[in-house]
Amino acid sequence: MNTPLSSAAPSLSSPVIALDAMGGDFGPSVVIPGAALALAQDPALQFIFFGEEGPIRQMIATHALPAPSYHIVHAERVIRGDDKPSAALRASKGTSMRAAIEAVDTGRAQAVVSAGNTGALMALSMAVLKTLPGVHRPALASVFPGERCDTLVLDLGANVLVDSENLVQFAILGAVYAKLIKNVPTPRVGLLNVGTEETKGPDHVRAAAATLAHLNFHGVYAGFVEGTDLLRSAVDVIVCDGYAGNIALKTAEGVSKFTIEGIKAAINSDLMAKLGGLLAAPALRRFKKKIDPRLYNGALLLGLGGVAVKSHGGADALAFSSAVLAAARLARAGYVESVAREMNIILESGAQI
Amino acid sequence: MNTPLSSAAPSLSSPVIALDAMGGDFGPSVVIPGAALALAQDPALQFIFFGEEGPIRQMIATHALPAPSYHIVHAERVIRGDDKPSAALRASKGTSMRAAIEAVDTGRAQAVVSAGNTGALMALSMAVLKTLPGVHRPALASVFPGERCDTLVLDLGANVLVDSENLVQFAILGAVYAKLIKNVPTPRVGLLNVGTEETKGPDHVRAAAATLAHLNFHGVYAGFVEGTDLLRSAVDVIVCDGYAGNIALKTAEGVSKFTIEGIKAAINSDLMAKLGGLLAAPALRRFKKKIDPRLYNGALLLGLGGVAVKSHGGADALAFSSAVLAAARLARAGYVESVAREMNIILESGAQI
Repeated sequence: MNTPLSSAAPSLSSPVIALDAMGGDFGPSVVIPGAALALAQDPALQFIFFGEEGPIRQMIATHALPAPSYHIVHAERVIRGDDKPSAALRASKGTSMRAAIEAVDTGRAQAVVSAGNTGALMALSMAVLKTLPGVHRPALASVFPGERCDTLVLDLGANVLVDSENLVQFAILGAVYAKLIKNVPTPRVGLLNVGTEETKGPDHVRAAAATLAHLNFHGVYAGFVEGTDLLRSAVDVIVCDGYAGNIALKTAEGVSKFTIEGIKAAINSDLMAKLGGLLAAPALRRFKKKIDPRLYNGALLLGLGGVAVKSHGGADALAFSSAVLAAARLARAGYVESVAREMNIILESGAQI
Repeated sequence: MNTPLSSAAPSLSSPVIALDAMGGDFGPSVVIPGAALALAQDPALQFIFFGEEGPIRQMIATHALPAPSYHIVHAERVIRGDDKPSAALRASKGTSMRAAIEAVDTGRAQAVVSAGNTGALMALSMAVLKTLPGVHRPALASVFPGERCDTLVLDLGANVLVDSENLVQFAILGAVYAKLIKNVPTPRVGLLNVGTEETKGPDHVRAAAATLAHLNFHGVYAGFVEGTDLLRSAVDVIVCDGYAGNIALKTAEGVSKFTIEGIKAAINSDLMAKLGGLLAAPALRRFKKKIDPRLYNGALLLGLGGVAVKSHGGADALAFSSAVLAAARLARAGYVESVAREMNIILESGAQI
């Protein structure tokens, strides 16, 4: 880094976001314009770009990023998308991803965003930022659109096997999110299951339900929910293991695409329908915009000692900007500090979580 | 039963379907018209209705079911939707559901269909029909619509926890289905996972992949598939545990509904769009009809010593008729005998499944 970004203490109102400029399918050619879009939405943001200085400078010039808003830290090395997390972790020194995460650890930045290798980001974030006391495993969380309001769903693939304690901790992580970011005073938390009756589902899910029903936390346990509830705004937070969560997430993507493409094909199937489609196009575009997955890009790594957000590897600039804005919201809201306080209270109460 | 339905041996071309007339939310008022709709599609079918003779006769008169096509077996007792499977099993004697299943066991019928309590149907079918040699647990399977062809997905909730052997057996059950019912010479079978790389996912899923890659069975193992592949006709059969499968199924239902209702609301949001919607309505109805969940109703209980199909409890007559037709297809194709043969060959080969 050439000079410190600001000699003042980091301010929550102007959070510094560390960006892994080399991550994802497109590297700086998405990260820089993505940052520019985020800056247009939130002019108080500041960035540190980690990666190859040449290409970064070139993209910054193209996108006319104002000088006070950014800093560049050259990093020679890059973690590839197909590196195994364990190998990536061992050979992570000097990579753009690791340097960006370390900036959060040292307090230079208040959040990190990367579109790189998910497993490596998870492993490196855990190694560098550590999990908070009371959190055994961090969770990958995403926001799903809903009829009335969004729903946070976690875990989405970081933990394919979980125990009941993990699920309870995810519930706490989700409740703090909903309280701070959705401004819900007492967030409703549901456990994803195969039915709503108490006797349904795997043992660890029922054990988590039993704990949550009596736990004093920043949310209220709302019982079991089902796959049909994911987009129904039934609850504020839905908790599940990473295997089911990832399958639900990708099923939702696939079904949404299948349905929209099927309707498109139907409209293009005859002249009258085509004409109708033209007349309805502006209204349909409004709906499509509302559910545009790019607006929901950014999987949050919750439960760590710092804010880390994973952008989709194939994200474009708009999608990447959503991930940056999500990271900024968590940093500004003091999410990490709130989780630490909440966990501390729960652990001191002697509750078994 | 008054008299035997036919003195001749049961014929695969005119299968007898045992129907639990009291099952589901609507009992005979859906089961009888559902049977009538199935008969209109497939006039060779024959039915035995199990349940309260009075209401059954009344509905038969209303729907003018031709006398040679059916028989009634009076059953006083009914298993309720909220009975626990274990309690239902203990107190099942003389219930319409149990009597219908027993008709398959005794050879009076070649398949049973019930819209009643899923857990009870599963437990009773296992107790009466038994699993086939080599099958540790039966699976609940359903057909998902796809871009080019349907995909059979199993398990969908009968087994929330499975081991790798269960998954391998589900793969075999699915492959035999695809071969017989979809007429695919060498069905492609995928394992549902959180990524397509070999290192991804829970241990038991990776262990099942290792076995399937070398197993000589009526299909070909096509690797890991993801939630996005459910409607992509990527493979003929998708295998997963019942927890993930049930969540995927219900997520698909929820997302499909959310998308279609969102588009409807968008079209109704302004006058021009409404006019467009009117012009496009016939084409949109064609698409909606193609993905009508009622056409895919009927979860198949595979791996048992007889054909058993679960209709959705809230099914209407059209949906119930789909379940009846699915049962008839399995019976006609000799599905149970084919699975028994296939399992026998695999077990004799010494393969560990």
